[in-house]
Order: sequence, then structure tokens, then C-alpha cells
Amino acid sequence: MNRKIGIAMHGGAGTILKSQMNPEKEAMYTDALKEAVLAGEAILLKNGLAVDAVEAVVRKLEDNPLFNAGKGSVFTHDGKNEMDASIMDGKTLKAGAVTGVTHVRNPVNLARAVMDHTEHVFLSGSGAVDFARAMGIPLETDEYFYVQYRYDQLKRARESDTIVLDHTAIKDIDEKKFGTVGAVALDVFGNVAAATSTGGMTNKKHGRIGDSPIIGAGTYANNKTCAISCTGHGEFFIRSVVAYDISCLMEYKGLTLKEACNYVVKDKLKKLGGEGGLIAIDTHGNIEMPFNTEGMYRASKHGEDELVTGIY
Amino acid sequence: MNRKIGIAMHGGAGTILKSQMNPEKEAMYTDALKEAVLAGEAILLKNGLAVDAVEAVVRKLEDNPLFNAGKGSVFTHDGKNEMDASIMDGKTLKAGAVTGVTHVRNPVNLARAVMDHTEHVFLSGSGAVDFARAMGIPLETDEYFYVQYRYDQLKRARESDTIVLDHTAIKDIDEKKFGTVGAVALDVFGNVAAATSTGGMTNKKHGRIGDSPIIGAGTYANNKTCAISCTGHGEFFIRSVVAYDISCLMEYKGLTLKEACNYVVKDKLKKLGGEGGLIAIDTHGNIEMPFNTEGMYRASKHGEDELVTGIY
Repeated sequence: MNRKIGIAMHGGAGTILKSQMNPEKEAMYTDALKEAVLAGEAILLKNGLAVDAVEAVVRKLEDNPLFNAGKGSVFTHDGKNEMDASIMDGKTLKAGAVTGVTHVRNPVNLARAVMDHTEHVFLSGSGAVDFARAMGIPLETDEYFYVQYRYDQLKRARESDTIVLDHTAIKDIDEKKFGTVGAVALDVFGNVAAATSTGGMTNKKHGRIGDSPIIGAGTYANNKTCAISCTGHGEFFIRSVVAYDISCLMEYKGLTLKEACNYVVKDKLKKLGGEGGLIAIDTHGNIEMPFNTEGMYRASKHGEDELVTGIY
Repeated sequence: MNRKIGIAMHGGAGTILKSQMNPEKEAMYTDALKEAVLAGEAILLKNGLAVDAVEAVVRKLEDNPLFNAGKGSVFTHDGKNEMDASIMDGKTLKAGAVTGVTHVRNPVNLARAVMDHTEHVFLSGSGAVDFARAMGIPLETDEYFYVQYRYDQLKRARESDTIVLDHTAIKDIDEKKFGTVGAVALDVFGNVAAATSTGGMTNKKHGRIGDSPIIGAGTYANNKTCAISCTGHGEFFIRSVVAYDISCLMEYKGLTLKEACNYVVKDKLKKLGGEGGLIAIDTHGNIEMPFNTEGMYRASKHGEDELVTGIY
């Protein structure tokens, strides 16, 4: 119970060019990051569980249209918002995940309900939304998810026939950003947990699923090692089973969290061509937030240390 | 090129009671297993690729109504056949997977097309079926997938309100069977590959996704280590990231294929409560087919060795 708590979060990685950022926008992002981390820390400070803290952080980010998750989700080719989310508790190794859900205000809450109230791990599509309805999880109208600049992105992506992981190749600060949000936490009991949520790719077709809802790829937590949430070019993260790889490098090869994170993100993923990053916390409270892109929206807080935020 | 080829396959694990099997049924299963393995071996003997061999084996099993995949897929709660499949090439670490697809005659071929002809790894639902149509992959009518005893299983499952992974708790030989098919292979070039396909759970609801289409959980292949295809209670296999775990135990901890397979299936999974089994081949041609259930339909062939089949 005298263990130091810790929490870290990301709001997506990618090409975030300082030259195209302005102080107002930067402040908006930084404030959002801080607010989310503090929401999670508040739970941990009251001896709350890591799994509750990561859920609260991701929920905050899902409610903020700045990030590609929940309200700010990008549009599919058909003009829909199809969202994915997952959560894992390192204490029990229980997990919940959803993919291709529409109208669910907070997909991370639905993933949590799958974990807590079903024998399943992974539900999809309209069946998952039916489950949300049955559980009384808030649904929203299309209007709630209609964010003008997201729709404009879709129109431009459709015109150029590109499928992009967050934003189409437009000269704005979000160019080539892999929009996903996620959190990892360590509670006073020594439990770690991770959660990830995403609105997917602008103009995506064919019900594409990325790494965010895949336990082992985008999200993983285990009290033996660490908790991980990823953001990036999902296909590479799936093929590399990134989140579990970091846990295995620690458990089986004896690497530190830092060594494992750097090896996976800056060596293995890079060699395969996989752009992105991740946030990680181990059971000692060490936090790593590596990325191999221009930037990654991120923030962390460990024990009494200062709150840290970063973009580039 | 003087390397010995090898191939192994499974047709599901579970409670397969000898007392409830009769010689005719046993012969039907054994013949089907042999036929599938020989289809894969024929490709490998002509210096074909491991990835082509596993696709051919799984395709054979999908076409056989004895197994819960393709034609023999079980029915969902809504009386539909929703299928999942995945494939991975250990040489390139490329992978393809589909979930919740209807009407596709051979989901493993669709997974292969995702791997070969898209930038994606994982497609779902009607979007994946649209992609199948665009690729000219054969679709079938509902009648093709209508297998009377599968529908009877659904009716009984609905009546008892149980969701079962293959068959409902009926006193027949398939009681508590985890119906999935899969194959792993090693070609003369030293490449390994794995493929898995399933019709899911009888009476399943909410678009549940199991481990079969999840790269790292139900399927994994890497020329550094081995190729794996799993069958069992999918939720536990997802939470344990079973297929990649075996690869990591070999790569990072130096375990042999046999040691890694036994540790994961008979120790780790069992402690978590996860029933099932898997087939595995390493780059030396060692084959393992461990399971922690009463039985697993399985067969293998290595080099000049005799073809091996097993049920219990």
C-alpha cells in the first residue's frame, strides 16, 4: 500500500510538425492531456484500481473531439463512425474489447462491460451495440459524432481515394497522425492495467480492424511485467504482437521496461516499416513513452513527480 | 532445399469420448484428416510454399461438413453462419484474417487474399464479404451451409439458452468440442506458416470473436521460431496470447518447441482454466500437438515418416 502510483496516456502518434502547430492549438492539446491524466490520478490517489483509472482517462479522451476516439472519431468510407476499444486488467488477466461499434458514446466503457459482465473477451459490430443497449450503456445519435473537420477529412480522402489512419494527407498539423487514445496505470496495490480506444481510419472500407481492440497487439497488461497501450499503423502492430512482445521481453529475456520498449519501437517495428509509438508502465512505476514518428501526444504522472506532457 | 518438409493439422479439441465414438464415425474422421494432410504434403513435395500448403489443408477441412469451419460451420443465435479465419507467413511476417463473414465458401482463401492483396491484416463482417465479392472469391447460398445436425444443435442450444463453443451439451461424441480447424507447415526452403478457420460457437450472440482470427492468439508463424494454430476456449487463448507466447518462449527463453508447447498448454492455460490444444511445427521440422482436453482431432506428416493421425 506504500507503493507509488503512476499513470501515463497517449492521444495518438504521427507527423505532428511544430511548424504547423500554433500556441493556441498546442495549449488545447496540452490542457486536454493534463485533464485526462489528472482524472486517472484522482482515482489512484483514493486507492482506486488501475483498471478504473485507465478507463476514466480514456473516457475523458473519448469525450474530447480533439482525439480520434469516441466523439472525435473519424468517418469511414460510408460516412459512419465505427469505433474500437479494449481494456485489460493485469491482476486477473481479464480483458474486454469491441470492434466496429457505432453510436456508443464511450467504447472503453463497453469494453469494460464485456470484461466484467460476459464470458467473452471480444464482441463486434451490431451485436456489440445490442449488448451495450442491454447493459444500459449510453448511446448517442449520429449528430453527436458529427465533427465538421472530420467530415471534411473524409470528403478529401474520398476525392483522393486514400485510406488514412487518421487524417488524410492535408497540410495541417494532423497530417499522417495515427489517431488513437490510450492509458496505462499502476495502483497502490501493485496492479497494472491498460486501455485503448480509436475511431479507426478516415475513409476505411471493408470493416478493417486495427490493433487497438486486439489483446496482445494494441493493449496488454500483466502484473508480472507491465501494461502497454499502442498507437500507430495497426497492421504492423498486429503482425508484431507489439504489446505482448514487450511483456515477453521482460518476463522471458529479463529486459527492463526501457530496454524492451526501445527495442520493439525503435528497432523491430522500424525495420518492419511500422510507424507509431506506445505508452508503458511496469510494476515499479517506471514509465516509458517511446515513438518512432515525429511526435506523440502524451502525458504521465508518477508518485509525487511533476506531471509531464509532450507532443514532439 | 534438402530440408525435410513437415505438416500438421487439427480439426478441433474437446470432449471426444471413446465410448461414444463408433468405428464408422472414427473412420470418417480419420479419412478426412489423412486426406487433408496429404493435400498439404503434395504441395510441399513439389517444393511449394508452406503458406500454400496450410491454405490447402484448411480449405479441405472447410469443405468437409464434419468440421466446424466453412460448410460445417455451426449456427449463431440468429441462425446464421458467421465464420472467422486467419493465415500467417513466417517468412514475411505478413498475415491476413477475417471475422464474422457469411456466405464465403472458404474463409481461409479470403484471409489469404487480405494478406496478399490489401494493406490490411484484419477485415470484418459485410465489408469483408464485399471485399470477397470484389476479389471473385466464391460465395455460397445459405443452403450450402445448411447442415441438418448443426441446425438441430442450435435449436437445442436455444432451448437451453446455452452458448457453446461448438456443440451444445448433448450426449453425442461432439459434446464440448471446440470446433476449429488449422494447419501448420514447414517447406523445403525453411519457411513456416500457419492457418486457422472456424465457424465459431453454436448459439453465439453479440458478434463474439474468438482467438481463431487473432494473429498472436490463435495463429502465428515466424521463421525464427515456429508456426502455431490453436483450438479451444478462445477467450482464454486471447488473454494468454497463446500462439505468440510459444514463439517468445523459444526466441527469448531458449525453450524447445516441445517445452514451450507443454508449458503453455498443460501448465499456463490449464491454471487459467483454458481448455484446448494446438499444433506446432518449428523450423527443424519438429511437430508438437499438445492438448489439455479429452481429445483433439489431429494428423501430421514429417519427411519420410509415416502419416500420424490421432483423436484421443
